[in-house]
Amino acid sequence: RDYSIALIPGDGIGVDVIREGRKVLEAVCEIDGGLKFDYTEFDWSCEHYARHGKMMPDDGLERLRGFDSIYLGAVGYPGVPDHVSLWGLLLPIRRAFRQYINIRPVKLLRGIRSPLAGRSAEDLDFIVIRENNEGEYSSMGGRMYEGTPLDMAIQNSVFTRTGVERVLRYAFRLAQANGKRNRLTSATKSNGINHTMPFWDEYVGRITAEYPGVEVSNVHIDALCAFFVTKPDTFDVVVASNLFGDILTDLGAAIVGGLGIAPSANINPEKEFPSMFEPVHGSAPDIAGKGIANPIAAIWCVSMMLEHLGEAEAAKAVLEAVQDVLEEGQVLTPDLGGKASTRDVGDHICRKLRLA
Amino acid sequence: RDYSIALIPGDGIGVDVIREGRKVLEAVCEIDGGLKFDYTEFDWSCEHYARHGKMMPDDGLERLRGFDSIYLGAVGYPGVPDHVSLWGLLLPIRRAFRQYINIRPVKLLRGIRSPLAGRSAEDLDFIVIRENNEGEYSSMGGRMYEGTPLDMAIQNSVFTRTGVERVLRYAFRLAQANGKRNRLTSATKSNGINHTMPFWDEYVGRITAEYPGVEVSNVHIDALCAFFVTKPDTFDVVVASNLFGDILTDLGAAIVGGLGIAPSANINPEKEFPSMFEPVHGSAPDIAGKGIANPIAAIWCVSMMLEHLGEAEAAKAVLEAVQDVLEEGQVLTPDLGGKASTRDVGDHICRKLRLA
Ligand SMILES: CC(C)[C@H](C(=O)O)[C@@H](O)C(=O)O
Ligand SMILES: CC(C)[C@H](C(=O)O)[C@@H](O)C(=O)O
Repeated sequence: RDYSIALIPGDGIGVDVIREGRKVLEAVCEIDGGLKFDYTEFDWSCEHYARHGKMMPDDGLERLRGFDSIYLGAVGYPGVPDHVSLWGLLLPIRRAFRQYINIRPVKLLRGIRSPLAGRSAEDLDFIVIRENNEGEYSSMGGRMYEGTPLDMAIQNSVFTRTGVERVLRYAFRLAQANGKRNRLTSATKSNGINHTMPFWDEYVGRITAEYPGVEVSNVHIDALCAFFVTKPDTFDVVVASNLFGDILTDLGAAIVGGLGIAPSANINPEKEFPSMFEPVHGSAPDIAGKGIANPIAAIWCVSMMLEHLGEAEAAKAVLEAVQDVLEEGQVLTPDLGGKASTRDVGDHICRKLRLA
Repeated sequence: RDYSIALIPGDGIGVDVIREGRKVLEAVCEIDGGLKFDYTEFDWSCEHYARHGKMMPDDGLERLRGFDSIYLGAVGYPGVPDHVSLWGLLLPIRRAFRQYINIRPVKLLRGIRSPLAGRSAEDLDFIVIRENNEGEYSSMGGRMYEGTPLDMAIQNSVFTRTGVERVLRYAFRLAQANGKRNRLTSATKSNGINHTMPFWDEYVGRITAEYPGVEVSNVHIDALCAFFVTKPDTFDVVVASNLFGDILTDLGAAIVGGLGIAPSANINPEKEFPSMFEPVHGSAPDIAGKGIANPIAAIWCVSMMLEHLGEAEAAKAVLEAVQDVLEEGQVLTPDLGGKASTRDVGDHICRKLRLA
């Protein structure tokens, strides 16, 4: 079992946390001699942009294509516009490699206290499946009458049958297979957004017939955000469009301990292309290089990557080691109320892994 | 001081709660002999639709035009599509009467416990200003290739200079005048939505110069939702587009006690047209007519209506009476853990008003 990994630490704390994730992968291989990772590191970032005028070389996507997985830190730096940093690296990878599924667990780990009063790990354990390629992020649209009183901008949200069906089917399968309660919640807003959201709902209705035993509810995104706070224990699998999934997963991260912990997996289920694993957090330039970034989101991503590669046992071991460290509560970064450094936390998780 | 009020109880619990709101208005007039309200009730609703094929008569908007305020319960009923019920009544009123400002306080009332651990009334007290006429709710767009594998739908978000400037200026003025900390937070998503959100941000930037002393931050909607949970004490005035405001205010309602309490005011600041006051909650058909709906959202709306009409003292008295009842904790509807009926709560608030 030999896997090739493309490392893209990116900017800011991306660099700090990917270092720890890689360390954990190495510890995993020490323990399981049959497992091997080959790393190729790419310095694609805002620094690369400053030097070369682009976030990655023209053949960047070509170069990534052959890898088993991509492990990305974060991109973005003050002064570099988002359309350069994000639309020049992150979003093209998600789209070119048909990573149309973004998996984001909302799970309270052992040792973490939720900001929601009286909520325990039993109440907070579900998965958000976010559509990752189209919808509100189509980038279609434009501006007219700039510089005049009529100045206006239009953005097109684009929902296709292919795009909607494939993400819904993935979510339905997950609800059927892994569901605690076989419950699927679909995020909509068909009461306010009258073309694309009824379209989405229509496909939810049709596909429901293909998956008997899955109990489906359609909930408007406004109410759904409220329910994440007031009844998070009622969810099992939540499926959402690109924007709604983005919103729900940051909110989901908040109710289970914050962005320092939240992982995400950009998946190409057909495995025609590499999938990409990246923490939900950004590059956080304000704390970059200070050694205080929480590496747990990135390390949880390693667990998701192992899972995706078929290494379920190793995946589980990593997440257990993370939880052992959290539960112990001695070696934590400042965002979790501790005083440890990024490196300390990474080292301590490796120690727990070796002890297990 | 004689005001004309158009009452539109609407559907479901709308009817139950507007009755209590009116009762409170009458109690207010008993106390202040100089104040008088003339009510005209309109039975526009899904029932009206069932009988007449439309939510309101063709000259409905014409008939409403002359009133000082509109007091609306909720519309919507199972089996009646949203594009009939909402797009046939609620949204046309918001738009025709240029109610381009939707004010939604996020304020923890005395006597309410937040679901956020350790948060008190001091931490939870801000206002969301939602753009209420354009943006993601433009209703522009369409569908193509229906019934084929190419089936797709497109929705246009439309942001105009006029629409954006007027809501931003309103929010800036509020932050300057009423702000605890003169802080304005603007909801954006310019890192993912690349035409309309940078347009919004650009106008935020320009208008900032007109309001010295207001400290502005631009926060992506995903992070902003997370911050409502993790640091709600840092907000003062939040300004958002139609969709983002919708999402933020349901979430805002959740952190301060739920939709049973949350009021909203659809304001035409120029007073060319009547403004409309409506609870954030819907018609809740499942509990309609059972006498258990919480009337407090609707009664808080009465307070906002009085405020808008220039009756600041009466507005304050109503909200104080509501808080007295909540704090006492004896007469509450089931959503707040009590056993009282909708009517009991309305009566008790009137009693407190008269005692004050
Ligand atoms: C019913 C719906 C169209 C409406 C909206 O999204 O504006 C409601 O959710 C609200 O918040 O007033
Ligand atoms: C950086 C941004 C474009 C991105 C997104 O919205 O997809 C981020 O918020 C995320 O959730 O991965």
